[in-house]
Amino acid sequence: MTGTGEPSRAVAPRRVPPRPLPVAVDTMGGDHAPGEIVAGAVDAVREHGVRLVLVGQAPRIRRELDRYGYVGKIPIVHADEALDMGEGALASWRKPRSSIAIACHLIKQGRASALVSAGTTAGVVATSRLRLKGQQGVMRPAIAVTLPTRPRPTILLDAGATADVKAETLVQFAALGTAYAQILLGPDRPTVGLLNIGAEAGKGNKLAKRAHELLAGGNHGIEFAGNVEGHDLLSGRVDVIVTDGFTGNVALKTMEGTIGAAFTEIRDAMTASPAARMGALLQRRRLQDLRDRLDPDTYGGGVLLGLNGTVVIAHGASRARAISSACELAHRLAAGRIVERIREQVAATRTSRFGRWTHGERDGRENPERADGAAKPPAETPPPPREPAGDTVPDRKEPPAVP
Amino acid sequence: MTGTGEPSRAVAPRRVPPRPLPVAVDTMGGDHAPGEIVAGAVDAVREHGVRLVLVGQAPRIRRELDRYGYVGKIPIVHADEALDMGEGALASWRKPRSSIAIACHLIKQGRASALVSAGTTAGVVATSRLRLKGQQGVMRPAIAVTLPTRPRPTILLDAGATADVKAETLVQFAALGTAYAQILLGPDRPTVGLLNIGAEAGKGNKLAKRAHELLAGGNHGIEFAGNVEGHDLLSGRVDVIVTDGFTGNVALKTMEGTIGAAFTEIRDAMTASPAARMGALLQRRRLQDLRDRLDPDTYGGGVLLGLNGTVVIAHGASRARAISSACELAHRLAAGRIVERIREQVAATRTSRFGRWTHGERDGRENPERADGAAKPPAETPPPPREPAGDTVPDRKEPPAVP
Repeated sequence: MTGTGEPSRAVAPRRVPPRPLPVAVDTMGGDHAPGEIVAGAVDAVREHGVRLVLVGQAPRIRRELDRYGYVGKIPIVHADEALDMGEGALASWRKPRSSIAIACHLIKQGRASALVSAGTTAGVVATSRLRLKGQQGVMRPAIAVTLPTRPRPTILLDAGATADVKAETLVQFAALGTAYAQILLGPDRPTVGLLNIGAEAGKGNKLAKRAHELLAGGNHGIEFAGNVEGHDLLSGRVDVIVTDGFTGNVALKTMEGTIGAAFTEIRDAMTASPAARMGALLQRRRLQDLRDRLDPDTYGGGVLLGLNGTVVIAHGASRARAISSACELAHRLAAGRIVERIREQVAATRTSRFGRWTHGERDGRENPERADGAAKPPAETPPPPREPAGDTVPDRKEPPAVP
Repeated sequence: MTGTGEPSRAVAPRRVPPRPLPVAVDTMGGDHAPGEIVAGAVDAVREHGVRLVLVGQAPRIRRELDRYGYVGKIPIVHADEALDMGEGALASWRKPRSSIAIACHLIKQGRASALVSAGTTAGVVATSRLRLKGQQGVMRPAIAVTLPTRPRPTILLDAGATADVKAETLVQFAALGTAYAQILLGPDRPTVGLLNIGAEAGKGNKLAKRAHELLAGGNHGIEFAGNVEGHDLLSGRVDVIVTDGFTGNVALKTMEGTIGAAFTEIRDAMTASPAARMGALLQRRRLQDLRDRLDPDTYGGGVLLGLNGTVVIAHGASRARAISSACELAHRLAAGRIVERIREQVAATRTSRFGRWTHGERDGRENPERADGAAKPPAETPPPPREPAGDTVPDRKEPPAVP
């Protein structure tokens, strides 16, 4: 794959067949930036043919590219600033020229299809919510993560984007997860489970009970498979598991911590005696393979769904291999038109018996052309003009609950 | 150890030194009842010198005791009914003569110190809340579980007794956990962490943020160590982890499910090739030890805290060994005066700057004699007369949040 070879320049318009837009890579985020990020980017271009544009401090990026003989082969867009790994959500306001903000700007301008960053989750979420804005009709964004189940992965969302949600938001998360699973896993009707503390319908806290009612009510384009429990995260029982960002984040970190602790314990047990150590030598390769598969650095990283653009958040500790996978994933989601699919899927939840929801209208961003041809709910307000680029409108508020 | 040898009879009063009251064992609850339950009880008496009274269908219990030559050596209290493993909370109303209800009755009468059951959690919690009632001043009960951390265990609560809580309830759970940890683990000031989705104070959902404020406010007799995250469940960073019953249950089941999945994967990896199989043979014993230590059936089971009596809930799949451990634990908690300790610890949270809380008074059960000698808040209502035994007053309502 080749780029334009011109740093700090827009990607030139292409002839037919139209090539996909490049994925913007934030080279300044992550514990091992920019070295491992650029290494991963080169791998994604060389091994997987993904089109990229690298965002960050141009001289440093060029120096890293030089190691692989890739100077001029991947376009660079310069960004003065970067979010530090210690910085949280506030930095997105303080640094409008950060590499993540510039990457979002490329997406808004139609010069990039997606963003990959290994920066702090809080910083990436805040900046991209601020710059890309929420997708029309979507109440809140959610982070979807792919769990290392077999034979095919299970998608968990929300893993931490929105800590306080309403039951209606969980139904939307089910729609986001369905759209994501269709692209990532393939099935027409991915099964969706609600994370809860019991299998029966009446179980759970108020939020889970109400969400179960709404999801079980049907006619929203979601293949609802009922409640699932904590031990189903790795059982592969459903394609998508839906929960609020607080519970999802606790569950995900519990799973990761438990995998880590189990491997430490097993390593100790396997090397506790001379005979056991001998045994460990014989199994070395197999266990390393397994360790890799269950390592968050390999399977990890989340996708922020519900914004006007695809954002892939790699682990902060990501090495080249993880960045390369994240670039591939971003490319795949953009090629699968994830934003359009989410719009259709969310519209289906609103044209169902939940049509009384008014979040689409309240947002004032109701989509005038409905892909599914369903009856359009009465528009209360005309669509507002598009916001200027680089504005700093705060995150949208969730509308009050419908009584 | 010997019992009175008389079934269906009260345990006779004892000479000095007063022997501790026996632990009531529900022999009818659990997947392997009554066989494994009675086997575990015999083990607890024979190996650990725990005094017991067996509650359930007397002829069946006697038949099981006969296998070990223990007929007449452990007292039996007959109960006609038993909660089925499929029955939930409603059964506690329908079956006032169930083995769990009778065991609660023994505690209320002062004939037993504690209850051990391997019945369904929902059934045991509902029946014992109904029969034993909430302890004075305690807003909601919580299930505390002991996680298999090293070098010493971490206690997690609530693991599922109360799904919807207020921030003030979480402060009380911290008090319950502190009292429990003092008996189980020993330290004068056990450290308490709040389960959250970030280390900093401002992280989390509304509930967690508010609970952090209250706990960090200090002067409540709790050694608050700040927020902990999902991966701290097995890190051993704190002695006690506090959360609501929904999040706690999801986290616990996620941990159990992940341990199970990790062992399955590792077993597959270890036997995938002839060399690896040879290795596995050499490690067999060590890995079995580890498997046992991380098996919920060994470390598992919860303690329902906050009622007028100690209730140990063993896993439904408990075998004799787990029941024997549960009997030992119940004995230890009763000997450590867990109910009194909780009363003192909860009183300390109310005589702190949170003295404005009114749940003690609203309950109408403010304790007239204060163990800590602190200023008694003004009583709004006189203490009501004690409820008659075997009544069916519904669970107390949590008082409204203090604005």
